[in-house]
Amino acid sequence: METQILPVASCHQLPFPDADLARVPINKQSTASISPYLLPDKDRIKMKVIDKIVGADPNRVVFSFEFFPPKTEDGVDNLFERMERMVAHNPSFCDITWGAGGSTADLTLEIANKMQNNVCVETMMHLTCTNMPVEKIDHALHTIKSNGLQNVLALRGDPPHGQDKFVQVEGGFACARDLVKHIRAKYGDYFGITVAGYPEAHPDMIQSDGLATEEGYQNDLAYLKSKVEAGADLIVTQLFYDTDIFLKFVNDCRQIGITCPIVPGIMPINNYKGFIRMTGFCKTKIPAEIMAALDPIKDNEEAVKAYGVHLGTEMCKKILAHGIKTLHLYTLNMEKSALAILMNLGLIEESKISRSLPWRRPTNVFRVKEDVRPIFWANRPKSYISRTIGWDQYPHGRWADSCNPSYGALTDYQFMRPRARDKKLIEEWAVPLKSVEDIYERFRMFCLGKLKSSPWSELDGLQPETKIINEHLEKINMKGFLTINSQPAVNGEKSDSPTVGWGGPGGYVYQKAYLEFFCSKEKLDALVDKCKDRTSLTYMAVNKEGSWKSNVGQTDVNAVTWGVFPAKEIIQPTIVDPLSFNVWKDEAFEIWSRGWASLYPEGDASRKLIEEVGTSYFLVSLVDNDYVNGDLFAAFADF
Amino acid sequence: METQILPVASCHQLPFPDADLARVPINKQSTASISPYLLPDKDRIKMKVIDKIVGADPNRVVFSFEFFPPKTEDGVDNLFERMERMVAHNPSFCDITWGAGGSTADLTLEIANKMQNNVCVETMMHLTCTNMPVEKIDHALHTIKSNGLQNVLALRGDPPHGQDKFVQVEGGFACARDLVKHIRAKYGDYFGITVAGYPEAHPDMIQSDGLATEEGYQNDLAYLKSKVEAGADLIVTQLFYDTDIFLKFVNDCRQIGITCPIVPGIMPINNYKGFIRMTGFCKTKIPAEIMAALDPIKDNEEAVKAYGVHLGTEMCKKILAHGIKTLHLYTLNMEKSALAILMNLGLIEESKISRSLPWRRPTNVFRVKEDVRPIFWANRPKSYISRTIGWDQYPHGRWADSCNPSYGALTDYQFMRPRARDKKLIEEWAVPLKSVEDIYERFRMFCLGKLKSSPWSELDGLQPETKIINEHLEKINMKGFLTINSQPAVNGEKSDSPTVGWGGPGGYVYQKAYLEFFCSKEKLDALVDKCKDRTSLTYMAVNKEGSWKSNVGQTDVNAVTWGVFPAKEIIQPTIVDPLSFNVWKDEAFEIWSRGWASLYPEGDASRKLIEEVGTSYFLVSLVDNDYVNGDLFAAFADF
Repeated sequence: METQILPVASCHQLPFPDADLARVPINKQSTASISPYLLPDKDRIKMKVIDKIVGADPNRVVFSFEFFPPKTEDGVDNLFERMERMVAHNPSFCDITWGAGGSTADLTLEIANKMQNNVCVETMMHLTCTNMPVEKIDHALHTIKSNGLQNVLALRGDPPHGQDKFVQVEGGFACARDLVKHIRAKYGDYFGITVAGYPEAHPDMIQSDGLATEEGYQNDLAYLKSKVEAGADLIVTQLFYDTDIFLKFVNDCRQIGITCPIVPGIMPINNYKGFIRMTGFCKTKIPAEIMAALDPIKDNEEAVKAYGVHLGTEMCKKILAHGIKTLHLYTLNMEKSALAILMNLGLIEESKISRSLPWRRPTNVFRVKEDVRPIFWANRPKSYISRTIGWDQYPHGRWADSCNPSYGALTDYQFMRPRARDKKLIEEWAVPLKSVEDIYERFRMFCLGKLKSSPWSELDGLQPETKIINEHLEKINMKGFLTINSQPAVNGEKSDSPTVGWGGPGGYVYQKAYLEFFCSKEKLDALVDKCKDRTSLTYMAVNKEGSWKSNVGQTDVNAVTWGVFPAKEIIQPTIVDPLSFNVWKDEAFEIWSRGWASLYPEGDASRKLIEEVGTSYFLVSLVDNDYVNGDLFAAFADF
Repeated sequence: METQILPVASCHQLPFPDADLARVPINKQSTASISPYLLPDKDRIKMKVIDKIVGADPNRVVFSFEFFPPKTEDGVDNLFERMERMVAHNPSFCDITWGAGGSTADLTLEIANKMQNNVCVETMMHLTCTNMPVEKIDHALHTIKSNGLQNVLALRGDPPHGQDKFVQVEGGFACARDLVKHIRAKYGDYFGITVAGYPEAHPDMIQSDGLATEEGYQNDLAYLKSKVEAGADLIVTQLFYDTDIFLKFVNDCRQIGITCPIVPGIMPINNYKGFIRMTGFCKTKIPAEIMAALDPIKDNEEAVKAYGVHLGTEMCKKILAHGIKTLHLYTLNMEKSALAILMNLGLIEESKISRSLPWRRPTNVFRVKEDVRPIFWANRPKSYISRTIGWDQYPHGRWADSCNPSYGALTDYQFMRPRARDKKLIEEWAVPLKSVEDIYERFRMFCLGKLKSSPWSELDGLQPETKIINEHLEKINMKGFLTINSQPAVNGEKSDSPTVGWGGPGGYVYQKAYLEFFCSKEKLDALVDKCKDRTSLTYMAVNKEGSWKSNVGQTDVNAVTWGVFPAKEIIQPTIVDPLSFNVWKDEAFEIWSRGWASLYPEGDASRKLIEEVGTSYFLVSLVDNDYVNGDLFAAFADF
């Protein structure tokens, strides 16, 4: 009996034919009871800053941070550590400047790549015309496109170092508008393009009295409009300290038909001399009351900073009161003032760092569907990102549907770390070791939070949820089960719980208790014995040379973290599976030698001890599948 | 920074290089704490009966049922109803005979198709050489292959009606071995091929004394071996009543090198005359004690049946005691004796019908990956199967990954139902209706279990879990919310719970409370109002002409049933989503006119009333996303 198959549209009316629906814009439909973080797929792939701003809840203020490429390698390391902390507060994007005259082009490209893919924040890269023939422009655009970035701030740029006036380079562009045109012509709609707006007109228009003529101001506005018409979709303003000037500027833009969002650029005053130098360079008007307030405290750096936070807060309050819900903070690579202003405004809470998933999803356009990961890299997300960068498809919803992903080889990259952390590691881990008990002691102290670093972790200290079980962890580390990863069981906690929550309010989250540790073969054998009676425990164990023990099938994929949200399929972001475990184990064992032993000189006795343990111990992954009534640590009671 | 990407195998050792593992066959690895029903994917696609038997837990007895094509249409209807009940006890397969001389070929093909795809049991079709030129053989094989069947029982077949001896038809095969050879040559490994084994030798070998000569018996054994060598992978025996003869036969087979499983065919004695006729036809030896036991009760049909159950039980016990763990029951299309024997053996429990998913997964080879379905067809699985039969890919684990499946058109097929049920429907639903309250009354009575049929259901009566909430359902039906589908909230019940459990022991199952009903526009508006305060409720509503109201997005997919099992990803077999809801609504509204109103004569007042309601009411799908603390029925309290 044959059944005629027709496309849906031909066998009944269109799925949503009603006028009720037609009146509601698509992004307004999912309002009631839908989690604000776990947006539907159609929203999740909004990576352009303009879409994020337009698509945001109209009552929510979105903010962003600007950084510049530091001059030293240590500076770069420090910037990334700072950025990690700032990004935890969920800015809608961060941008990185191109550097005067393109002098730091390669560095900017590398930083932008890391911001997008390792720090996992939506990244907007500045691009200027200064010293940039079109090939260099295209090289930069091609690079960020293939790195998964989708946002550019197009600028003419300052004159090259040592010159007074901007000069069009041969084969380059004369102005930002032409750069915008080029990007649109060559890359279509791929990029979100932002341009700069000058509330006091472009510095070139500013007369010796510190003001632009009305004609100069109007010409500059008209030019801004032409940049938008050329294809820009967002305006971020130059810094200003007179809020009224900014508000008038927005109004003037609207008058001449500029309709795109205009984001105020706020630079908190951090330092008196810097402030004077910057405003002088940008020809920014400083209201008299600001000078009057700064003058008596100009030599007291702390007082200047405090005033800067106060002033920034008041400026932002006034702007927000006028219905503008976006703020861009020029951080000058410093975090405190920017965060203090946002905290004063109630836009961030120190204690409540919200997570859309248990791990931070890279914003790379190629990875937008990624929402499942093996637990093994929980403490080494950068290594995971690096080793999966060649994947064409990231698993979406279900790990088992991605067949046999091949991981990148173990390269030096996985062991590269910011130098600042290396110092801590040497101090905390490169201590004299006389026996395996001294090795146990390092792991014990780390899991109690008494050490800040671990060779097996790229993170600073412990994940908050580890603290829930750290006394249990201490005990088993003392018994020679050297833990490197763990999570407590969670049986339906509210999804906005500060310790284990993710995905926003309205849902429930779950975890199976998990432990990952190194132990000797004898201890493993005893543990395997105990698993026979405890049927809710599943384990996988492997040593450096690949000897394998497990009670799960080769293709079994165990979801160990999942969440249930309104009007959603079950989200299961963390899994345990044999295939990735076997990839991870190479890295985990390599860390014994390259991450720890190598901190000691060749021939050192401690080094030898570490290498012995790393060669003989098993890496064990243990799941208690009974997250309701189980007790994972009970299996260790008799050791 | 480029990371070199290599396939897994080239960047480290093979994933499972250890000898520990090599010693364990793959299907033995997943033993500890793995649910026996939710087998890993690699096992799930074992559709050949031989693989199911070899892959089964060696301590578990597997059983199967044989049926034959009934002679009348009513008989076919009745057979399917019976089969539904018997298949609920999880036989490893069912087979359907080809009918003497291929007289019922088309009917057999159609029944086999429905067994596999609608009843959802692994189906083995008999195929004989009688009157079958190779084109007919290939037509039959091609048909079942394209219907997703993978099992054939290859027989020579009986002589055609009215003839004494088997005659090879022109262009056909002379014996089962040649048929086996042909199937293997033409279809490779696609089919699992079973052949018949004759514990007392083939009837053709039986002499007038009722026995085969030793030479005849040995020749028959050698021929059986040649059938296996030609490509058969399983033997099912002819019926027998002397268990020792069967056990000797198995032993003799092993002696001459037949190694495949040999499944005993057991035919419970149902009726004295039938028993004598059948054993005479098959030339089966009847042990004297059986004749002695039957003789005094031969006119008491009940006593004969009871003896048949007793005898069958004892025979099976003896066979099982000899380590043979498979039983094939010749049911003669009757259910009671076969089920009674299995119950006596402790192989089935009346109260405990186990489910691998909340709905029965079709065994069709093309649908093996199917494990997600929209809830809307919960009571009309045959309609769902029919409307999705053209799909290339069934969703596996996640509905949202299958983009816009197109459903088959609404054809008459959806309204075809066994006649037996039509009678009940006319009796229970085609009653005089004076007002909408009389309509409410039908729905109320159905949800209380006082009616056995409903135009919106293909099932007999209610699902067991509906009983948990039927008092709530009664109340809202009386208020004019005419429920056609519902499920209670379930917050982590054990997965072997008799009412809501599925997937076997060791896991936990969950459900979001769900209601689907028809109601007037006024009642819908009032309900929508109540949803504004109850943020955990999400709804979709649509009327016959497509007017749409909802508080979910067009692409939101809501998992309303899910389960958590050891070493598994989350299984989420039932979902609610706008796209399938809009396909289903056409069917749901069509049932008002074609399924209910049409039971009355044209122009009847009751018919008119039904059609008015069906045209004006909305179909509403309502989910309470808070399965932990929610109370779906509270929203109806003030009506």
